Amino acid sequence: MKEIFDGFEKLKTSRREFGLGSDEVLRCIKTIFEYSLQYLNSCNRIELKSKVEGKRYFAFKSEKKITRAINSDVYETGLPLADKMFEAVRRRCFDELDADSMTAACYLSAISYCSAVDLLKSGDQKTPGTFFEYFIGHLYSRRLGIDPKKKIDVLNLDMQSTLPTDFIFDLGSNRAKFHLPVKTSTRERVIQVWAHQRLLDGVYGTGRFIGTLACMAETKTDKKKLEVVEICLPAQWRLYQMYIAQMKRIYYLDMPDAYGRLNTVFPKIPVMPFGHFFSEIDSLTQ
Amino acid sequence: MKEIFDGFEKLKTSRREFGLGSDEVLRCIKTIFEYSLQYLNSCNRIELKSKVEGKRYFAFKSEKKITRAINSDVYETGLPLADKMFEAVRRRCFDELDADSMTAACYLSAISYCSAVDLLKSGDQKTPGTFFEYFIGHLYSRRLGIDPKKKIDVLNLDMQSTLPTDFIFDLGSNRAKFHLPVKTSTRERVIQVWAHQRLLDGVYGTGRFIGTLACMAETKTDKKKLEVVEICLPAQWRLYQMYIAQMKRIYYLDMPDAYGRLNTVFPKIPVMPFGHFFSEIDSLTQ
Repeated sequence: MKEIFDGFEKLKTSRREFGLGSDEVLRCIKTIFEYSLQYLNSCNRIELKSKVEGKRYFAFKSEKKITRAINSDVYETGLPLADKMFEAVRRRCFDELDADSMTAACYLSAISYCSAVDLLKSGDQKTPGTFFEYFIGHLYSRRLGIDPKKKIDVLNLDMQSTLPTDFIFDLGSNRAKFHLPVKTSTRERVIQVWAHQRLLDGVYGTGRFIGTLACMAETKTDKKKLEVVEICLPAQWRLYQMYIAQMKRIYYLDMPDAYGRLNTVFPKIPVMPFGHFFSEIDSLTQ
Repeated sequence: MKEIFDGFEKLKTSRREFGLGSDEVLRCIKTIFEYSLQYLNSCNRIELKSKVEGKRYFAFKSEKKITRAINSDVYETGLPLADKMFEAVRRRCFDELDADSMTAACYLSAISYCSAVDLLKSGDQKTPGTFFEYFIGHLYSRRLGIDPKKKIDVLNLDMQSTLPTDFIFDLGSNRAKFHLPVKTSTRERVIQVWAHQRLLDGVYGTGRFIGTLACMAETKTDKKKLEVVEICLPAQWRLYQMYIAQMKRIYYLDMPDAYGRLNTVFPKIPVMPFGHFFSEIDSLTQ
Protein backbone atom coordinates (compact mmCIF):
# COMPACT_ATOMS: atom_id res chain seq x y z
CA MET A 1 0.00 0.00 0.00
CA LYS A 2 2.58 2.42 -1.22
CA GLU A 3 -0.12 5.05 -1.89
CA ILE A 4 -0.77 5.48 1.84
CA PHE A 5 2.85 6.23 2.64
CA ASP A 6 3.38 8.36 -0.47
CA GLY A 7 0.27 10.26 0.58
CA PHE A 8 1.75 10.87 4.01
CA GLU A 9 5.01 12.19 2.54
CA LYS A 10 3.01 14.48 0.27
CA LEU A 11 0.97 15.64 3.28
CA LYS A 12 4.15 16.72 5.07
CA THR A 13 5.42 18.57 1.98
CA SER A 14 2.05 20.24 1.36
CA ARG A 15 1.86 21.44 4.94
CA ARG A 16 5.27 23.07 4.60
CA GLU A 17 4.60 24.55 1.19
CA PHE A 18 0.98 25.62 1.39
CA GLY A 19 0.20 25.78 5.11
CA LEU A 20 -1.71 23.42 7.38
CA GLY A 21 -5.12 24.87 6.50
CA SER A 22 -4.61 24.65 2.73
CA ASP A 23 -6.76 22.81 0.18
CA GLU A 24 -3.68 20.78 -0.76
CA VAL A 25 -3.41 19.46 2.81
CA LEU A 26 -7.10 18.59 2.83
CA ARG A 27 -6.72 16.68 -0.44
CA CYS A 28 -3.78 14.71 1.00
CA ILE A 29 -5.71 13.83 4.16
CA LYS A 30 -8.69 12.67 2.11
CA THR A 31 -6.50 10.60 -0.22
CA ILE A 32 -4.68 8.96 2.69
CA PHE A 33 -8.01 8.17 4.32
CA GLU A 34 -9.45 6.64 1.15
CA TYR A 35 -6.45 4.40 0.49
CA SER A 36 -6.36 3.40 4.16
CA LEU A 37 -10.03 2.46 4.13
CA GLN A 38 -9.59 0.55 0.89
CA TYR A 39 -6.71 -1.40 2.40
CA LEU A 40 -8.60 -2.12 5.65
CA ASN A 41 -11.58 -3.38 3.66
CA SER A 42 -9.30 -6.05 2.21
CA CYS A 43 -8.49 -7.29 5.74
CA ASN A 44 -10.53 -9.44 8.08
CA ARG A 45 -12.45 -7.94 10.97
CA ILE A 46 -12.44 -9.53 14.41
CA GLU A 47 -14.72 -8.63 17.28
CA LEU A 48 -12.90 -7.64 20.47
CA LYS A 49 -14.18 -8.33 23.97
CA SER A 50 -15.18 -4.90 25.14
CA LYS A 51 -14.74 -4.25 28.84
CA VAL A 52 -16.01 -0.72 28.23
CA GLU A 53 -19.62 -0.39 29.27
CA GLY A 54 -21.96 0.50 26.42
CA LYS A 55 -19.32 0.38 23.67
CA ARG A 56 -18.45 -2.34 21.15
CA TYR A 57 -15.00 -2.59 19.60
CA PHE A 58 -13.46 -4.51 16.71
CA ALA A 59 -10.07 -4.68 15.03
CA PHE A 60 -8.77 -5.43 11.55
CA LYS A 61 -6.42 -8.37 11.19
CA SER A 62 -3.67 -9.15 8.72
CA GLU A 63 -1.61 -12.26 9.22
CA LYS A 64 -0.44 -12.10 12.83
CA LYS A 65 -1.07 -8.43 13.41
CA ILE A 66 -4.19 -6.70 14.62
CA THR A 67 -5.00 -3.00 14.67
CA ARG A 68 -5.84 -0.83 17.64
CA ALA A 69 -9.41 -1.11 18.92
CA ILE A 70 -12.04 0.59 16.76
CA ASN A 71 -15.37 1.70 18.20
CA SER A 72 -17.86 -0.22 16.04
CA ASP A 73 -20.80 2.17 16.32
CA VAL A 74 -18.84 5.35 15.71
CA TYR A 75 -17.00 3.74 12.80
CA GLU A 76 -20.19 2.49 11.14
CA THR A 77 -21.89 5.83 11.71
CA GLY A 78 -18.95 7.57 10.05
CA LEU A 79 -18.83 5.44 6.89
CA PRO A 80 -21.68 7.08 4.94
CA LEU A 81 -20.71 10.55 6.27
CA ALA A 82 -17.03 10.82 5.41
CA ASP A 83 -17.47 12.32 1.93
CA LYS A 84 -19.97 14.83 3.24
CA MET A 85 -17.62 15.81 6.08
CA PHE A 86 -14.67 16.35 3.72
CA GLU A 87 -16.90 18.40 1.43
CA ALA A 88 -18.17 20.49 4.36
CA VAL A 89 -14.60 21.12 5.49
CA ARG A 90 -13.53 21.99 1.95
CA ARG A 91 -16.30 24.54 1.58
CA ARG A 92 -15.97 25.67 5.21
CA CYS A 93 -19.69 25.02 5.69
CA PHE A 94 -19.44 23.37 9.04
CA ASP A 95 -23.12 23.42 9.89
CA GLU A 96 -24.07 20.92 7.20
CA LEU A 97 -23.52 18.00 9.60
CA ASP A 98 -24.53 17.88 13.26
CA ALA A 99 -21.97 17.40 16.02
CA ASP A 100 -22.38 13.62 16.28
CA SER A 101 -22.02 13.16 12.53
CA MET A 102 -18.89 15.32 12.45
CA THR A 103 -17.44 13.36 15.38
CA ALA A 104 -18.12 10.02 13.69
CA ALA A 105 -16.77 11.04 10.28
CA CYS A 106 -13.62 12.51 11.84
CA TYR A 107 -13.16 9.39 13.98
CA LEU A 108 -13.45 7.17 10.90
CA SER A 109 -10.94 9.26 8.95
CA ALA A 110 -8.38 9.43 11.74
CA ILE A 111 -8.55 5.84 12.89
CA SER A 112 -8.45 4.39 9.37
CA TYR A 113 -4.96 5.71 8.72
CA CYS A 114 -3.75 4.79 12.23
CA SER A 115 -5.11 1.25 11.83
CA ALA A 116 -3.58 0.81 8.39
CA VAL A 117 -0.20 1.77 9.86
CA ASP A 118 -0.74 -0.69 12.74
CA LEU A 119 -0.90 -3.48 10.16
CA LEU A 120 1.58 -2.24 7.58
CA LYS A 121 4.41 -1.15 9.88
CA SER A 122 6.00 -2.49 13.05
CA GLY A 123 6.23 -0.36 16.17
CA ASP A 124 5.44 2.88 14.37
CA GLN A 125 3.77 5.08 16.98
CA LYS A 126 4.98 8.28 15.46
CA THR A 127 3.28 8.67 12.09
CA PRO A 128 -0.25 7.91 13.46
CA GLY A 129 0.33 10.63 16.08
CA THR A 130 1.64 13.06 13.46
CA PHE A 131 -1.24 12.35 11.06
CA PHE A 132 -3.77 12.88 13.83
CA GLU A 133 -2.08 16.13 14.83
CA TYR A 134 -2.15 17.39 11.24
CA PHE A 135 -5.77 16.31 10.78
CA ILE A 136 -7.06 18.07 13.90
CA GLY A 137 -4.79 21.05 13.25
CA HIS A 138 -6.16 21.28 9.72
CA LEU A 139 -9.77 21.25 10.97
CA TYR A 140 -8.97 24.08 13.41
CA SER A 141 -7.23 25.98 10.62
CA ARG A 142 -10.20 25.67 8.26
CA ARG A 143 -12.67 26.58 10.99
CA LEU A 144 -10.71 29.55 12.34
CA GLY A 145 -9.42 30.71 8.97
CA ILE A 146 -5.75 30.92 10.01
CA ASP A 147 -2.68 28.71 10.11
CA PRO A 148 -1.17 27.81 13.49
CA LYS A 149 2.25 28.55 14.92
CA LYS A 150 4.35 25.99 16.78
CA LYS A 151 6.50 28.44 18.73
CA ILE A 152 6.14 31.84 20.27
CA ASP A 153 8.49 34.52 21.49
CA VAL A 154 9.04 35.11 25.16
CA LEU A 155 10.07 38.62 26.13
CA ASN A 156 10.75 39.05 29.83
CA LEU A 157 13.01 41.90 30.94
CA ASP A 158 16.55 40.81 30.10
CA MET A 159 15.52 37.35 28.87
CA GLN A 160 14.66 36.62 25.30
CA SER A 161 13.82 33.19 24.05
CA THR A 162 11.44 31.11 22.02
CA LEU A 163 9.01 28.68 23.54
CA PRO A 164 8.17 25.63 21.42
CA THR A 165 4.50 24.82 21.87
CA ASP A 166 1.65 22.71 20.64
CA PHE A 167 -0.46 24.45 17.99
CA ILE A 168 -1.21 28.10 18.70
CA PHE A 169 -3.94 29.82 16.68
CA ASP A 170 -3.62 33.57 17.06
CA LEU A 171 -6.73 35.44 15.94
CA GLY A 172 -4.92 38.78 16.21
CA SER A 173 -4.82 41.64 18.68
CA ASN A 174 -7.77 42.01 21.02
CA ARG A 175 -8.94 38.56 20.01
CA ALA A 176 -8.42 35.11 21.45
CA LYS A 177 -5.47 32.82 20.98
CA PHE A 178 -6.13 29.10 21.05
CA HIS A 179 -3.70 26.61 22.57
CA LEU A 180 -4.33 23.21 20.98
CA PRO A 181 -2.47 20.13 22.18
CA VAL A 182 -3.42 17.01 20.17
CA LYS A 183 -2.98 13.45 21.48
CA THR A 184 -4.17 10.09 20.14
CA SER A 185 -4.41 9.07 23.82
CA THR A 186 -3.28 10.72 27.02
CA ARG A 187 -2.35 8.36 29.88
CA GLU A 188 -0.09 9.66 32.63
CA ARG A 189 1.74 12.13 30.39
CA VAL A 190 -1.29 14.36 30.02
CA ILE A 191 -0.04 16.52 32.91
CA GLN A 192 2.17 18.11 30.22
CA VAL A 193 -0.93 19.63 28.65
CA TRP A 194 -1.92 21.47 31.82
CA ALA A 195 1.71 22.44 32.45
CA HIS A 196 2.01 24.03 29.00
CA GLN A 197 -1.25 25.89 29.61
CA ARG A 198 0.14 27.15 32.91
CA LEU A 199 3.31 28.31 31.21
CA LEU A 200 1.26 30.28 28.66
CA ASP A 201 -0.90 31.74 31.45
CA GLY A 202 2.22 32.68 33.41
CA VAL A 203 4.24 34.15 30.56
CA TYR A 204 1.42 36.03 28.76
CA GLY A 205 -1.25 36.43 31.44
CA THR A 206 -4.17 34.23 32.42
CA GLY A 207 -7.01 34.28 29.90
CA ARG A 208 -4.94 35.17 26.86
CA PHE A 209 -4.69 31.57 25.63
CA ILE A 210 -7.77 29.37 25.56
CA GLY A 211 -6.69 25.78 26.08
CA THR A 212 -8.52 23.05 24.14
CA LEU A 213 -7.13 19.52 24.12
CA ALA A 214 -8.16 17.16 21.31
CA CYS A 215 -7.85 13.40 21.76
CA MET A 216 -8.84 10.34 19.79
CA ALA A 217 -9.61 7.72 22.47
CA GLU A 218 -8.34 6.12 25.69
CA THR A 219 -8.64 2.47 24.71
CA LYS A 220 -6.04 -0.15 25.44
CA THR A 221 -6.13 -3.55 23.77
CA ASP A 222 -4.78 -6.74 25.23
CA LYS A 223 -3.72 -8.34 21.96
CA LYS A 224 -3.54 -11.84 23.44
CA LYS A 225 -6.89 -11.84 25.21
CA LEU A 226 -8.43 -9.60 22.51
CA GLU A 227 -9.90 -7.44 25.27
CA VAL A 228 -10.40 -3.68 25.23
CA VAL A 229 -10.37 -1.45 28.28
CA GLU A 230 -10.37 2.33 28.70
CA ILE A 231 -7.68 3.84 30.87
CA CYS A 232 -8.89 7.01 32.56
CA LEU A 233 -7.65 9.04 35.50
CA PRO A 234 -10.48 11.50 36.20
CA ALA A 235 -9.48 12.21 39.81
CA GLN A 236 -6.06 13.32 38.63
CA TRP A 237 -7.50 15.49 35.88
CA ARG A 238 -9.52 17.31 38.55
CA LEU A 239 -6.35 18.03 40.50
CA TYR A 240 -4.59 19.29 37.37
CA GLN A 241 -7.55 21.55 36.56
CA MET A 242 -7.63 22.90 40.13
CA TYR A 243 -3.93 23.26 40.82
CA ILE A 244 -2.07 23.67 37.53
CA ALA A 245 -4.19 25.52 34.98
CA GLN A 246 -7.63 25.65 33.42
CA MET A 247 -8.37 23.85 30.17
CA LYS A 248 -11.46 25.27 28.51
CA ARG A 249 -12.38 22.12 26.58
CA ILE A 250 -11.27 18.53 26.23
CA TYR A 251 -12.54 17.08 22.94
CA TYR A 252 -12.69 13.38 22.12
CA LEU A 253 -13.49 11.46 18.96
CA ASP A 254 -14.38 8.42 21.13
CA MET A 255 -15.18 10.01 24.48
CA PRO A 256 -14.74 7.84 27.59
CA ASP A 257 -17.73 7.99 29.94
CA ALA A 258 -15.37 8.38 32.90
CA TYR A 259 -14.26 11.72 31.44
CA GLY A 260 -17.73 12.66 30.21
CA ARG A 261 -18.85 12.50 33.86
CA LEU A 262 -16.40 15.31 34.66
CA ASN A 263 -19.07 17.60 33.16
CA THR A 264 -21.31 16.76 36.08
CA VAL A 265 -18.96 17.28 39.04
CA PHE A 266 -18.19 20.61 40.64
CA PRO A 267 -15.94 22.30 39.66
CA LYS A 268 -16.58 20.73 36.27
CA ILE A 269 -14.16 20.01 33.44
CA PRO A 270 -15.90 20.40 30.08
CA VAL A 271 -15.20 17.19 28.14
CA MET A 272 -17.10 16.82 24.86
CA PRO A 273 -17.32 14.87 21.61
CA PHE A 274 -15.09 16.63 19.09
CA GLY A 275 -17.91 17.50 16.68
CA HIS A 276 -19.08 20.26 19.03
CA PHE A 277 -15.92 22.18 18.28
CA PHE A 278 -17.23 23.35 14.91
CA SER A 279 -20.29 25.11 16.29
CA GLU A 280 -19.09 26.29 19.69
CA ILE A 281 -15.53 27.47 19.10
CA ASP A 282 -16.50 31.12 18.60
CA SER A 283 -18.41 31.18 21.87
CA LEU A 284 -15.38 29.89 23.82
CA THR A 285 -13.68 33.24 23.44
CA GLN A 286 -16.41 35.11 25.24
CA MET B 1 24.46 -13.23 30.90
CA LYS B 2 21.55 -14.72 32.74
CA GLU B 3 22.94 -13.49 36.09
CA ILE B 4 22.25 -9.86 35.14
CA PHE B 5 18.58 -10.49 34.43
CA ASP B 6 18.15 -12.85 37.38
CA GLY B 7 19.71 -10.16 39.53
CA PHE B 8 17.21 -7.63 38.22
CA GLU B 9 14.27 -9.91 39.02
CA LYS B 10 15.69 -10.46 42.51
CA LEU B 11 16.09 -6.68 42.90
CA LYS B 12 12.38 -6.17 42.21
CA THR B 13 11.42 -8.91 44.69
CA SER B 14 13.80 -7.59 47.37
CA ARG B 15 12.42 -4.09 47.01
CA ARG B 16 8.89 -5.39 47.58
CA GLU B 17 9.85 -7.69 50.45
CA PHE B 18 12.46 -5.72 52.34
CA GLY B 19 11.99 -2.11 51.20
CA LEU B 20 13.96 0.06 48.80
CA GLY B 21 16.56 1.08 51.39
CA SER B 22 17.30 -2.47 52.57
CA ASP B 23 20.65 -4.26 52.60
CA GLU B 24 19.10 -6.89 50.32
CA VAL B 25 18.39 -4.25 47.65
CA LEU B 26 21.93 -2.91 47.96
CA ARG B 27 23.34 -6.42 47.49
CA CYS B 28 21.23 -6.91 44.37
CA ILE B 29 22.35 -3.58 42.89
CA LYS B 30 25.99 -4.43 43.56
CA THR B 31 25.65 -7.91 42.06
CA ILE B 32 23.91 -6.56 38.95
CA PHE B 33 26.65 -3.97 38.57
CA GLU B 34 29.44 -6.52 38.91
CA TYR B 35 28.00 -8.93 36.37
CA SER B 36 27.25 -6.04 34.00
CA LEU B 37 30.83 -4.78 34.27
CA GLN B 38 32.20 -8.29 33.76
CA TYR B 39 30.08 -8.67 30.64
CA LEU B 40 31.07 -5.26 29.27
CA ASN B 41 34.74 -6.06 29.83
CA SER B 42 34.31 -8.98 27.42
CA CYS B 43 33.11 -6.59 24.69
CA ASN B 44 35.07 -4.25 22.47
CA ARG B 45 35.26 -0.55 23.17
CA ILE B 46 34.93 2.02 20.41
CA GLU B 47 35.69 5.70 20.68
CA LEU B 48 32.80 7.99 19.75
CA LYS B 49 33.17 11.37 18.10
CA SER B 50 32.27 13.69 20.92
CA LYS B 51 30.54 16.91 19.87
CA VAL B 52 30.34 17.84 23.55
CA GLU B 53 33.01 20.34 24.46
CA GLY B 54 35.47 19.08 27.03
CA LYS B 55 34.05 15.56 27.29
CA ARG B 56 35.17 12.29 25.67
CA TYR B 57 32.74 9.43 25.09
CA PHE B 58 33.05 5.76 24.14
CA ALA B 59 30.69 2.84 23.70
CA PHE B 60 30.87 -0.92 24.06
CA LYS B 61 30.20 -2.99 20.98
CA SER B 62 28.87 -6.49 20.50
CA GLU B 63 28.24 -7.75 16.99
CA LYS B 64 26.13 -5.06 15.34
CA LYS B 65 24.97 -3.31 18.50
CA ILE B 66 26.59 -0.51 20.42
CA THR B 67 25.72 0.84 23.85
CA ARG B 68 24.68 4.35 24.77
CA ALA B 69 27.51 6.89 25.04
CA ILE B 70 29.68 6.54 28.15
CA ASN B 71 31.68 9.49 29.50
CA SER B 72 35.25 8.15 29.39
CA ASP B 73 36.70 10.25 32.20
CA VAL B 74 33.86 9.75 34.66
CA TYR B 75 33.79 6.00 33.88
CA GLU B 76 37.54 5.58 34.38
CA THR B 77 37.45 7.65 37.55
CA GLY B 78 34.67 5.44 38.88
CA LEU B 79 36.37 2.07 38.25
CA PRO B 80 38.69 2.01 41.30
CA LEU B 81 36.03 3.67 43.51
CA ALA B 82 32.99 1.43 43.02
CA ASP B 83 33.74 -1.00 45.85
CA LYS B 84 34.48 1.83 48.23
CA MET B 85 31.23 3.58 47.25
CA PHE B 86 29.15 0.45 47.83
CA GLU B 87 30.86 -0.08 51.19
CA ALA B 88 30.24 3.55 52.20
CA VAL B 89 26.59 3.20 51.25
CA ARG B 90 26.31 -0.10 53.12
CA ARG B 91 27.72 1.41 56.31
CA ARG B 92 25.95 4.72 55.72
CA CYS B 93 29.28 6.52 56.04
CA PHE B 94 28.77 8.91 53.19
CA ASP B 95 31.68 11.20 53.93
CA GLU B 96 34.32 8.60 53.10
CA LEU B 97 34.37 9.70 49.47
CA ASP B 98 34.25 13.26 48.18
CA ALA B 99 31.45 14.48 45.92
CA ASP B 100 33.30 13.88 42.64
CA SER B 101 34.27 10.34 43.65
CA MET B 102 30.69 9.54 44.64
CA THR B 103 29.40 10.96 41.36
CA ALA B 104 31.87 8.89 39.32
CA ALA B 105 31.27 5.62 41.19
CA CYS B 106 27.49 6.05 40.94
CA TYR B 107 27.78 6.89 37.24
CA LEU B 108 29.84 3.76 36.61
CA SER B 109 27.37 1.57 38.49
CA ALA B 110 24.30 2.97 36.79
CA ILE B 111 25.62 3.11 33.25
CA SER B 112 27.15 -0.39 33.38
CA TYR B 113 23.78 -2.07 33.79
CA CYS B 114 22.11 0.24 31.24
CA SER B 115 24.87 -0.45 28.71
CA ALA B 116 24.72 -4.21 29.26
CA VAL B 117 20.98 -4.09 28.54
CA ASP B 118 21.65 -2.00 25.41
CA LEU B 119 23.70 -4.91 24.06
CA LEU B 120 21.79 -7.89 25.45
CA LYS B 121 18.25 -6.79 24.67
CA SER B 122 16.51 -5.04 21.78
CA GLY B 123 14.52 -1.87 22.30
CA ASP B 124 14.37 -2.24 26.07
CA GLN B 125 14.14 1.30 27.41
CA LYS B 126 12.20 0.32 30.46
CA THR B 127 14.48 -1.80 32.65
CA PRO B 128 17.42 0.66 32.45
CA GLY B 129 15.04 3.39 33.60
CA THR B 130 13.66 1.22 36.39
CA PHE B 131 17.12 0.16 37.54
CA PHE B 132 18.28 3.77 37.63
CA GLU B 133 15.18 4.77 39.57
CA TYR B 134 15.75 2.01 42.13
CA PHE B 135 19.44 2.84 42.41
CA ILE B 136 18.93 6.56 43.08
CA GLY B 137 15.91 5.83 45.27
CA HIS B 138 18.02 3.39 47.27
CA LEU B 139 20.78 5.98 47.79
CA TYR B 140 18.21 8.51 49.04
CA SER B 141 16.71 5.85 51.32
CA ARG B 142 20.09 4.96 52.84
CA ARG B 143 21.05 8.59 53.25
CA LEU B 144 17.73 9.75 54.73
CA GLY B 145 17.10 6.57 56.72
CA ILE B 146 13.56 5.99 55.44
CA ASP B 147 11.80 4.22 52.58
CA PRO B 148 9.90 6.28 50.02
CA LYS B 149 6.23 6.29 49.11
CA LYS B 150 4.94 6.37 45.54
CA LYS B 151 1.51 7.80 46.25
CA ILE B 152 -0.05 10.19 48.70
CA ASP B 153 -3.56 10.96 49.87
CA VAL B 154 -5.31 14.08 48.75
CA LEU B 155 -7.95 15.43 51.11
CA ASN B 156 -9.78 18.47 49.81
CA LEU B 157 -13.23 19.24 51.21
CA ASP B 158 -15.59 16.75 49.58
CA MET B 159 -12.91 15.20 47.33
CA GLN B 160 -10.85 12.27 48.40
CA SER B 161 -8.33 10.62 46.15
CA THR B 162 -4.83 9.31 45.86
CA LEU B 163 -2.15 10.99 43.82
CA PRO B 164 0.46 8.71 42.27
CA THR B 165 3.85 10.43 42.43
CA ASP B 166 7.52 9.99 41.91
CA PHE B 167 9.40 9.02 45.09
CA ILE B 168 8.31 10.92 48.20
CA PHE B 169 10.53 10.74 51.30
CA ASP B 170 8.58 11.94 54.30
CA LEU B 171 10.79 12.74 57.27
CA GLY B 172 7.76 13.10 59.54
CA SER B 173 5.77 15.94 61.03
CA ASN B 174 7.49 19.30 61.28
CA ARG B 175 10.22 18.02 59.02
CA ALA B 176 10.80 18.15 55.29
CA LYS B 177 9.35 15.93 52.62
CA PHE B 178 11.46 15.29 49.53
CA HIS B 179 9.96 14.94 46.07
CA LEU B 180 12.37 12.93 43.92
CA PRO B 181 11.72 12.38 40.22
CA VAL B 182 14.42 10.22 38.59
CA LYS B 183 15.15 10.23 34.84
CA THR B 184 17.95 8.69 32.79
CA SER B 185 17.54 11.71 30.50
CA THR B 186 14.95 14.46 30.35
CA ARG B 187 14.31 15.93 26.87
CA GLU B 188 11.03 17.72 26.27
CA ARG B 189 9.05 15.66 28.78
CA VAL B 190 10.84 17.20 31.74
CA ILE B 191 8.04 19.76 32.10
CA GLN B 192 6.24 16.90 33.94
CA VAL B 193 8.74 17.23 36.78
CA TRP B 194 7.91 20.89 37.37
CA ALA B 195 4.18 20.18 36.93
CA HIS B 196 4.26 17.47 39.61
CA GLN B 197 6.11 19.84 41.92
CA ARG B 198 3.45 22.47 41.29
CA LEU B 199 0.72 19.96 42.09
CA LEU B 200 2.40 19.11 45.40
CA ASP B 201 2.85 22.82 46.17
CA GLY B 202 -0.79 23.46 45.33
CA VAL B 203 -2.32 20.53 47.16
CA TYR B 204 -0.16 20.64 50.31
CA GLY B 205 1.20 24.18 50.36
CA THR B 206 4.37 25.69 48.88
CA GLY B 207 7.51 24.71 50.77
CA ARG B 208 6.23 21.42 52.16
CA PHE B 209 7.87 19.31 49.44
CA ILE B 210 11.45 19.96 48.44
CA GLY B 211 11.88 19.01 44.81
CA THR B 212 15.15 17.39 43.73
CA LEU B 213 15.42 15.86 40.26
CA ALA B 214 18.11 13.22 39.63
CA CYS B 215 19.28 12.49 36.08
CA MET B 216 21.98 10.40 34.49
CA ALA B 217 22.97 12.37 31.36
CA GLU B 218 21.61 14.20 28.31
CA THR B 219 23.67 12.54 25.62
CA LYS B 220 22.32 11.39 22.31
CA THR B 221 24.30 9.09 20.05
CA ASP B 222 24.05 8.95 16.29
CA LYS B 223 24.75 5.24 15.90
CA LYS B 224 25.62 5.53 12.21
CA LYS B 225 28.00 8.47 12.46
CA LEU B 226 29.15 7.36 15.95
CA GLU B 227 28.74 10.93 17.14
CA VAL B 228 27.61 12.10 20.56
CA VAL B 229 25.77 15.33 21.29
CA GLU B 230 24.08 16.68 24.40
CA ILE B 231 20.49 17.85 24.07
CA CYS B 232 19.73 20.65 26.51
CA LEU B 233 16.97 23.23 26.74
CA PRO B 234 18.18 25.65 29.41
CA ALA B 235 15.98 28.57 28.30
CA GLN B 236 12.90 26.39 28.76
CA TRP B 237 14.02 25.19 32.17
CA ARG B 238 14.25 28.82 33.26
CA LEU B 239 10.65 29.38 32.19
CA TYR B 240 9.52 26.25 34.05
CA GLN B 241 11.35 27.37 37.17
CA MET B 242 9.85 30.87 36.96
CA TYR B 243 6.29 30.03 35.92
CA ILE B 244 5.48 26.50 37.06
CA ALA B 245 7.27 25.65 40.30
CA GLN B 246 10.62 25.77 42.02
CA MET B 247 12.94 22.76 41.96
CA LYS B 248 15.50 22.99 44.76
CA ARG B 249 18.16 20.88 43.05
CA ILE B 250 18.80 19.16 39.75
CA TYR B 251 21.45 16.45 40.16
CA TYR B 252 23.36 14.84 37.31
CA LEU B 253 25.76 11.92 37.13
CA ASP B 254 27.16 13.38 33.88
CA MET B 255 26.23 17.04 34.15
CA PRO B 256 25.85 19.01 30.89
CA ASP B 257 27.70 22.33 30.95
CA ALA B 258 24.64 24.02 29.44
CA TYR B 259 22.71 23.17 32.60
CA GLY B 260 25.67 23.80 34.91
CA ARG B 261 25.64 27.38 33.63
CA LEU B 262 22.12 27.81 35.05
CA ASN B 263 23.90 28.21 38.42
CA THR B 264 25.34 31.47 37.17
CA VAL B 265 22.26 33.19 35.76
CA PHE B 266 19.73 35.14 37.79
CA PRO B 267 17.38 33.77 39.00
CA LYS B 268 19.57 30.69 39.19
CA ILE B 269 18.60 27.03 38.98
CA PRO B 270 20.91 24.94 41.17
CA VAL B 271 22.20 22.12 38.93
CA MET B 272 24.93 19.96 40.48
CA PRO B 273 26.88 16.73 40.14
CA PHE B 274 24.94 14.06 42.04
CA GLY B 275 27.71 13.37 44.56
CA HIS B 276 26.89 16.63 46.36
CA PHE B 277 23.57 15.16 47.42
CA PHE B 278 25.19 13.08 50.18
CA SER B 279 26.68 16.03 52.05
CA GLU B 280 24.19 18.79 51.36
CA ILE B 281 20.80 17.11 51.60
CA ASP B 282 20.26 18.02 55.27
CA SER B 283 20.93 21.68 54.55
CA LEU B 284 18.29 21.76 51.78
CA THR B 285 15.53 21.59 54.36
CA GLN B 286 16.60 24.80 56.06
